[in-house]
Amino acid sequence: MKYNFPITRTTTPKAKPDPDTLRFGQLFTDHMFIMEYTTGKGWHDGKIVPYAPLQIEPAAAVFHYAQEMFEGLKAYKSKDGRVLLFRPDMNAKRTTSTNERMCIPHLDEELMVEAIKAVVNVDKDWIPEKKGTSLYIRPFIIADEPFLGVRPSDHYLFMVILSPVGPYYEGGLAPTKIFVEDDFVRATPGGTGFAKIGGNYAAGMKSQEKAHEKGYEQVLWLDGVERKYVEEIGTSNAFFKIHDEVITAPLSGTILPGITRDSVINLLKQWGIKVSERRLTIEEVFEAGKQGKLIEMFATGTAAVISPVGELSWKDEKVVINNGEIGELSQKLYDELYGLQIGEVEDTLGWTVQV
Amino acid sequence: MKYNFPITRTTTPKAKPDPDTLRFGQLFTDHMFIMEYTTGKGWHDGKIVPYAPLQIEPAAAVFHYAQEMFEGLKAYKSKDGRVLLFRPDMNAKRTTSTNERMCIPHLDEELMVEAIKAVVNVDKDWIPEKKGTSLYIRPFIIADEPFLGVRPSDHYLFMVILSPVGPYYEGGLAPTKIFVEDDFVRATPGGTGFAKIGGNYAAGMKSQEKAHEKGYEQVLWLDGVERKYVEEIGTSNAFFKIHDEVITAPLSGTILPGITRDSVINLLKQWGIKVSERRLTIEEVFEAGKQGKLIEMFATGTAAVISPVGELSWKDEKVVINNGEIGELSQKLYDELYGLQIGEVEDTLGWTVQV
Ligand SMILES: Cc1ncc(COP(=O)(O)O)c(C=O)c1O
Ligand SMILES: Cc1ncc(COP(=O)(O)O)c(C=O)c1O
Repeated sequence: MKYNFPITRTTTPKAKPDPDTLRFGQLFTDHMFIMEYTTGKGWHDGKIVPYAPLQIEPAAAVFHYAQEMFEGLKAYKSKDGRVLLFRPDMNAKRTTSTNERMCIPHLDEELMVEAIKAVVNVDKDWIPEKKGTSLYIRPFIIADEPFLGVRPSDHYLFMVILSPVGPYYEGGLAPTKIFVEDDFVRATPGGTGFAKIGGNYAAGMKSQEKAHEKGYEQVLWLDGVERKYVEEIGTSNAFFKIHDEVITAPLSGTILPGITRDSVINLLKQWGIKVSERRLTIEEVFEAGKQGKLIEMFATGTAAVISPVGELSWKDEKVVINNGEIGELSQKLYDELYGLQIGEVEDTLGWTVQV
Repeated sequence: MKYNFPITRTTTPKAKPDPDTLRFGQLFTDHMFIMEYTTGKGWHDGKIVPYAPLQIEPAAAVFHYAQEMFEGLKAYKSKDGRVLLFRPDMNAKRTTSTNERMCIPHLDEELMVEAIKAVVNVDKDWIPEKKGTSLYIRPFIIADEPFLGVRPSDHYLFMVILSPVGPYYEGGLAPTKIFVEDDFVRATPGGTGFAKIGGNYAAGMKSQEKAHEKGYEQVLWLDGVERKYVEEIGTSNAFFKIHDEVITAPLSGTILPGITRDSVINLLKQWGIKVSERRLTIEEVFEAGKQGKLIEMFATGTAAVISPVGELSWKDEKVVINNGEIGELSQKLYDELYGLQIGEVEDTLGWTVQV
């Protein structure tokens, strides 16, 4: 290995959780990766230390101006004992474009992947092995220089923390009910929709709360200018199978370039299925629904991999998709992607990376 | 006083800074106010303690999903020794609407003002007295529950920290050069433009960096949908005096409802000057500039009070305003507002609050 991060091991290891009761993002492992950035010096002193609270000044920039970013990926343990990551280079690439937009200093992509591997390796006994469980990996950067004033910070922390997680949806692959948001807006051209930053998520909570109150699991965002083009579903990308075409919003700056989205597009192409990255109006979706041409709809993301949509509500209209059941394509994509991630489907594309 | 916050005094007070070399937001006083929120229990245990680093878990929501908000106001010491705040009830009101948008639990407005007064009172010897200096007050709320997942936190901290600051612009009231941003967008209807939250500022840094590179001090934001209506200048509201009308953008959800903005509108009305809160296109501004009808332009905000604009640049066009000099109205507004704030102009409107 090119990088050799010093490791300080915990003297008080925690008990591993019961894999049957794991939820999402509640527990953290024994160690974390931490590295500093200082203007003039660059990124320095990357190391693995026991997971512990940070000492941060109340004036730290992150608390006031939200100069921060994060990533998310998972580690799985295969049946033959290999520890596998799924396309971590894509998380590093997305970090580069997020950082550029947020005036956060560039983080070397290879270094980022090596840091992830190193800390996962130290805590590999924390990877749960029950079907549907995994070790969720959360790399993130925060601006921690203590000053008030709107300008990029001169000091940052890059960290990687790890959380053993259960299946995202308790009941496994089950169709969700989605609400089309036409009041609140997530992103707009010239904004930060393509970047993985705290501010985008804070801004979206209100809409999600509204959806929950109305009995829906997530929201489908529309574009911020005309409020007619479909963009994303909550924290995942959206796919629509209309007749024989699979459609997803293009990467035009307002949606997150999902790694699962990219993988799905690749698989569909490989399977000879027509897939289009194009603008799609919500009217077109409902029109297709009424005509029985909206064959399937699903969301893609690291947390749930593939999440089929069973019902879509927009204003006074409602459309039930595939009788509220899991579609054939959704199931096939889930099986293939999940199979690749846990090392049970042969990886001909070089997507899995062994720790 | 209705509230009686316990006070733990520092045993190691810091030396007060030299008032001649004060900058903005670099130094903090000896104490801070801190109060917790726990779901089910509400806000509790407000107290004044020595200014010190926080112990926060790496998984705290604020680091990942930027669920956070802040406010800003100033304390001045009048010649006769009174400690004055300027319209703190307006900061509390704005906090209410910000919190509502961000799914942050409501903070009682009176409690917030009393907390500010209490901590300013403890550190009142830190209020610098030199002309142009003040004690900047930063109330803020951060979500510190340690969990990963996009939902409102179940634990928060409300804090007030204090920073003795110098004049915002080193040279005093001097006209600035402003760049019209027509690529990046600050806010859009349905978004968070009216809320005082970290995410809005993180998103704006890139544009400000671009303006600096081009030799401009700040950016003038245009609306996010049509990119033609003027909105705000950096972290302040924008006013345009065209012929005999003073125009500023309306409070339609995309701009911050500035307290200085509100005060300026009130004063102008009181002085019998025509003032309109209406949409104004950037074309109209430049047209007026060419015809010699753009008499003055200025930004308003707590930091600089009134900041005249001497030059405005948009695409390939440039307009010099009032020969790049301070306008009559800008100067008069500054004198009146600053005079009120430091207790030298008689307060007939009840805007100043004594600590
Ligand atoms: C807003 C948003 N869109 C899409 C995604 C899906 O991206 P990925 O497939 O890389 O997890 C995520 C989650 O990471 C997200 O937060
Ligand atoms: C975006 C923005 N607009 C306007 C203002 C001016 O508001 P106020 O006059 O209350 O300071 C501020 C600063 O507080 C701001 O950050």
